[in-house]
Amino acid sequence: MNGKATEPEITEPNMRALLGSVGLDVEYLRAEGNTLVHAGADGEDVSVLDHVGGYGSLLLGHNNPEIVAHAKELLDARTPVHIQFSRHSSANRLALALNRILHRELGTTEDYLAFFASTGAEAVETGIKHAELDRRMRVGALIAEIDSHIEEVRAASRDGGVTVGAELGFAGPEELIAHVRAHNEAVLAKPPLFLALEGSFHGKLAGSVQLTHNPVVRGPFQALAAQARFVPIDQPDALAKVVDSEQAALLDLKVDGGVVTVEPREYPVFTAFLVEPVQGEGGINVLGEEFATRLRRTADALDVPVIVDEIQCGMGRTGTFLAGSAVGLQGDYYTLAKSLGGGIAKISLLLIRRSKYRPDFEFLHSSTFAKDGFSTAIALKVVELLEADDGAAYRRATELGIRLKSALDGVRADFPEVVKAVRGKGLMLGLEFGDQTGSPSEPVRDAALQGILGYAIAGYLLREHRIRIFPTASAPNTLRFEPSLQLTGEEIARTAAALRAVSVILRDQPDRIFQP
Amino acid sequence: MNGKATEPEITEPNMRALLGSVGLDVEYLRAEGNTLVHAGADGEDVSVLDHVGGYGSLLLGHNNPEIVAHAKELLDARTPVHIQFSRHSSANRLALALNRILHRELGTTEDYLAFFASTGAEAVETGIKHAELDRRMRVGALIAEIDSHIEEVRAASRDGGVTVGAELGFAGPEELIAHVRAHNEAVLAKPPLFLALEGSFHGKLAGSVQLTHNPVVRGPFQALAAQARFVPIDQPDALAKVVDSEQAALLDLKVDGGVVTVEPREYPVFTAFLVEPVQGEGGINVLGEEFATRLRRTADALDVPVIVDEIQCGMGRTGTFLAGSAVGLQGDYYTLAKSLGGGIAKISLLLIRRSKYRPDFEFLHSSTFAKDGFSTAIALKVVELLEADDGAAYRRATELGIRLKSALDGVRADFPEVVKAVRGKGLMLGLEFGDQTGSPSEPVRDAALQGILGYAIAGYLLREHRIRIFPTASAPNTLRFEPSLQLTGEEIARTAAALRAVSVILRDQPDRIFQP
Repeated sequence: MNGKATEPEITEPNMRALLGSVGLDVEYLRAEGNTLVHAGADGEDVSVLDHVGGYGSLLLGHNNPEIVAHAKELLDARTPVHIQFSRHSSANRLALALNRILHRELGTTEDYLAFFASTGAEAVETGIKHAELDRRMRVGALIAEIDSHIEEVRAASRDGGVTVGAELGFAGPEELIAHVRAHNEAVLAKPPLFLALEGSFHGKLAGSVQLTHNPVVRGPFQALAAQARFVPIDQPDALAKVVDSEQAALLDLKVDGGVVTVEPREYPVFTAFLVEPVQGEGGINVLGEEFATRLRRTADALDVPVIVDEIQCGMGRTGTFLAGSAVGLQGDYYTLAKSLGGGIAKISLLLIRRSKYRPDFEFLHSSTFAKDGFSTAIALKVVELLEADDGAAYRRATELGIRLKSALDGVRADFPEVVKAVRGKGLMLGLEFGDQTGSPSEPVRDAALQGILGYAIAGYLLREHRIRIFPTASAPNTLRFEPSLQLTGEEIARTAAALRAVSVILRDQPDRIFQP
Repeated sequence: MNGKATEPEITEPNMRALLGSVGLDVEYLRAEGNTLVHAGADGEDVSVLDHVGGYGSLLLGHNNPEIVAHAKELLDARTPVHIQFSRHSSANRLALALNRILHRELGTTEDYLAFFASTGAEAVETGIKHAELDRRMRVGALIAEIDSHIEEVRAASRDGGVTVGAELGFAGPEELIAHVRAHNEAVLAKPPLFLALEGSFHGKLAGSVQLTHNPVVRGPFQALAAQARFVPIDQPDALAKVVDSEQAALLDLKVDGGVVTVEPREYPVFTAFLVEPVQGEGGINVLGEEFATRLRRTADALDVPVIVDEIQCGMGRTGTFLAGSAVGLQGDYYTLAKSLGGGIAKISLLLIRRSKYRPDFEFLHSSTFAKDGFSTAIALKVVELLEADDGAAYRRATELGIRLKSALDGVRADFPEVVKAVRGKGLMLGLEFGDQTGSPSEPVRDAALQGILGYAIAGYLLREHRIRIFPTASAPNTLRFEPSLQLTGEEIARTAAALRAVSVILRDQPDRIFQP
């Protein structure tokens, strides 16, 4: 539809063809709130209810009038955008406003210092770089300590001899030192690891894609960067097992009463532990309070920083600014993006608590587009809107979420043979269809086997019900609902009616999903 | 200056303190063209001539009136920004417009397909991911071929016996096959490498920072991702040596007349070869035509894609849209960003020629903020402005560049004991001061030893001459000039006068650089 057939497609033409095959290659012309408009067959406006919401970027809706007005004010005032290496006061004011929120929600007074970037994936990459600098500096301190102990052994040896315990099996101190050095070099040569959860999504850049669980999108790029060990959510024993299996120690020496002994020193194998309080791309999975506690305790025991990825679930979407604060999770680092840009600007942030902060990083990391005058001022406005009226936006996300979830639960109750589960919190909900690989309809069976049935359902909902919603790549049977705060009761009712229609079709006439 | 002393700094406070120590922590309030405005001691407007230009993002100037007007039109029209998984016609129109330019400048008719991202570093990372997918698919095909040859050997062996040449030293086919497999597994286990140039800058994300030469910013993160081999510019023999030293082969088997022989097959060790036609961060180094040819030939011989990084030097800054086209360099991939966003939007692009394009990548890579309706429409306007009047912008960049360079050359001619070199092309110029580590002034000597003398000079120029210009981290003695197309003759004259004043001071009273 809307096509200029003569214009060749050279931006992802194969994806475009796939979208076209299920009727999703629509050209949207205008957008406001939860509504996207495209041209119909006769050029008339067709309004679509958008539950995709820019994959969680539109908590304030498409072209929110206050954000649009503020953007125009910034442009009219000729606000400097590119002001690298100067005083960035709107960036700092944003960081201070976020700190007030973190202090309130986490019950802490510790500062979180800010690094800016432009996308969620960039904030994650900034975080893993900072964590790796931290790990490397800790390793450096440990090695320096071991080296000084080695020198102590040598000094003691010169001063009159030391004994190396016979049970160690070395001829003398120098042989033992050589063994310790060789062992330590072998440990140091191994690349660091990350901890992350199954179902996780932390971006798709060369480093961050390694932390994104889906093996289809991660696998081909594994040779490019350090790897993660993935742990199933809510399985603390599995976490303990992974941690145990990767433990490593450096060897240190100690002289006591003329006897040299070998002391193992814990080696920081892991650079960081990444966690989304509510997984989005993984199919809307909510982290439980107990597992959050266990995860925090494990990280503390390992002295590995916890990076709480609030890029999609944060900024108030689940009823608190930080989704993790609802389960008592305190992060050492936080990553924010998506809705922080107000649906217009591209901005992301990494926040690091002062006790884990490495000032050196300021002189090592930078990005031309980061910390610009436009996106930081827009984000400041976003935070102001979220915090207004004593947090009315958070209450609204909670209330709307309860109403939408109750509508989805109603569909599930009426169609238990079709809808397997409804999950999520606030305006971040998932509706999972049951497995259709055994459907009596051949096309439905085939689409289910290929993992594209969700997109066919999305095509049906767009075509027949003017509702835009998608499954995720990693959970192809789960539709993800991330509408804005402007969601109305009428829109919730429309959504439920459309899902009932889909359920009837899947149950009674599955072929019809594909009919235009 | 301009300080609210009561507001704590939590965004890079140590960097802020360093900037403050040389008077660079100014808060800019408005920006237009080449002019930034801050408040003076009595609150009056102080206008500053900006040669930093957002590190090359402002070829069209700060808040270019046509870009600002277009941004406001987009906002007023409620243009959809977040429209993932739909038809992105402004993105495709932009890609088509860029293809027309590439075809003209490169003299080719081959299409370049586009992937969108938000920052330069993201475009580079997208490129290295695509190149790695390509490498991996080629390796996969090679392995499949070798496996089928192994099966041929086995079949021949079953059918009546084959001979393994005695000189190979194996008891029989199975022993030889085991050797071949072990050899190949060892080769495959090694991480891939990149080729890049000394002085290069390709970003600072976990993967791209490995391709950025400066060991200070790269070193601490080396364990995070695949490494590059860096080659000095304009030294083809050094390039050949690096390539030779990294060569590797897989072993293949061949049966001919009942005899099994071992055939080495060239293994693609390198994922990609990255090159900036004019290095920016490295201190303004222009790639020569001869080396460009040699580099292209080397890449062809290795079958490794050349990623031409035009993020800073492209978009017309040096007088052609692609800086590389002036030296006849044809890339397999191009990365664009910075000025493509018109000084307001964050956009970057990866272009890949059709013959090197892997359609599978479309289904593996994505980014929420990429390909949005705002930045693609702004970039389309940027391209329109650059191409207007038969490329008047490119001619203007060339002419202004000649005038600015001639002014800088004049300073150099008058102060040969202070100014070591003037380099560059178009509106991308560098002025290198001679080594000051032997200065009679102790503070100048110290600052030079610490690599921050360039920032002290920048502080002097801002304070005394209201000119904003910086050295780069990797070339701390080189000031980098990247003004906009609005640069005037008066501004060029002011710049030359200020540089003469700096030169007199450095020659006669170096301490004065630090005096406020």
